[in-house]
Amino acid sequence: MNFLEERIVKDGVVKEGNVLKVDSFLNHQMDIKLLDQMGAEFKRRFAGKPINKILTIEASGIGIACVAAQHFDVPVVFAKKSQSINLDGDMYVAEVESFTHKCINHVIVAQKFLSSEDHVLIIDDFLANGCALQGLIQIVQSSGATVEGIGIAIEKGFQSGGRIIRNLGFQLESLAIVDGMDAATGQIQFRDQGASAGNAAVSGAQAKNGGLYRSSTLD
Amino acid sequence: MNFLEERIVKDGVVKEGNVLKVDSFLNHQMDIKLLDQMGAEFKRRFAGKPINKILTIEASGIGIACVAAQHFDVPVVFAKKSQSINLDGDMYVAEVESFTHKCINHVIVAQKFLSSEDHVLIIDDFLANGCALQGLIQIVQSSGATVEGIGIAIEKGFQSGGRIIRNLGFQLESLAIVDGMDAATGQIQFRDQGASAGNAAVSGAQAKNGGLYRSSTLD
Repeated sequence: MNFLEERIVKDGVVKEGNVLKVDSFLNHQMDIKLLDQMGAEFKRRFAGKPINKILTIEASGIGIACVAAQHFDVPVVFAKKSQSINLDGDMYVAEVESFTHKCINHVIVAQKFLSSEDHVLIIDDFLANGCALQGLIQIVQSSGATVEGIGIAIEKGFQSGGRIIRNLGFQLESLAIVDGMDAATGQIQFRDQGASAGNAAVSGAQAKNGGLYRSSTLD
Repeated sequence: MNFLEERIVKDGVVKEGNVLKVDSFLNHQMDIKLLDQMGAEFKRRFAGKPINKILTIEASGIGIACVAAQHFDVPVVFAKKSQSINLDGDMYVAEVESFTHKCINHVIVAQKFLSSEDHVLIIDDFLANGCALQGLIQIVQSSGATVEGIGIAIEKGFQSGGRIIRNLGFQLESLAIVDGMDAATGQIQFRDQGASAGNAAVSGAQAKNGGLYRSSTLD
């Protein structure tokens, strides 16, 4: 297991309805040292890419993106989820459906912060059905900028978002991919990303198992 | 002028209705090096305080808080602005009015992330009438935790929030206090915080002016 998978096993809580609560370290209370480890790992996985800007979406992506940005030495732009009266000027807008909140959001980025010269790394905390992420990709492409990669903390591998994004040819790096959860037992199955996903340095021991799936029991 | 005042003069835009747009470096696109300077300055101003947690509010406070947290070596908790279906368990809730969005928000923090043992630094990007901040203070006090201080990037000194909070006895440190703005000329008046606010190290030259107010013209 890599450092994030270990932390999910230690402090994550599986709830009914395929909900994985990681609010004690990732998206309500944030462990800044963990975020820094994640930033270093994103930097390693996207080494050599000419990234000059990180794009994320409010709210829980912002902390991860800002700490990661220190490893890339680039500014962060966060997309807003609804029209604010302080956001004037020309804007890129994408309409996205929220799985968590069961509503339609407008994802908005001021046009002046993305241009055809930008090489963008998109960062977010969760990837499930990928609607928010598709909105961010749409916005980057509208601007003429290049999506150099997508860095996700936790991907729900049993939902379609990750497969769709990879099928479109994007380099999508999820630090932990959850392929199954059981609220009754608290078990979480992580996908073995192996060395091909650049995971060897952080979970070399796990690679020896050779299996597609492995199970972990919550404390 | 200190580093933040200089940046406001360089890249901020004054709009009608006492709106100061700093979205190119603070609350839409974020200059991470500037955030790091702000974090270092907060650490200097709150030196010696037994801070073990930073509390902020989504969305634009999160980046500042996360980068500042690296200087304090503490976790960040961000308050959410409306009830999320993923937020279960007992919660602290405060009702606050938003000046910007002209609506009532519920500010929410899960009870498990604040206790009587916590010594909290509250961080946010803007302070105007102080309603959001009062909600955060109310939540910290409900939990029995101690508010060790409040760190703000930009205070609108011509609104009442800062005066109220200081009158209540809190150590409120605003890196830039705007006492007046003129949308027609682009002029911004900063309050001279002088050496008493620990500002000497970063704006020693300005202290020689000796005046209560000074004016700066936008580029």
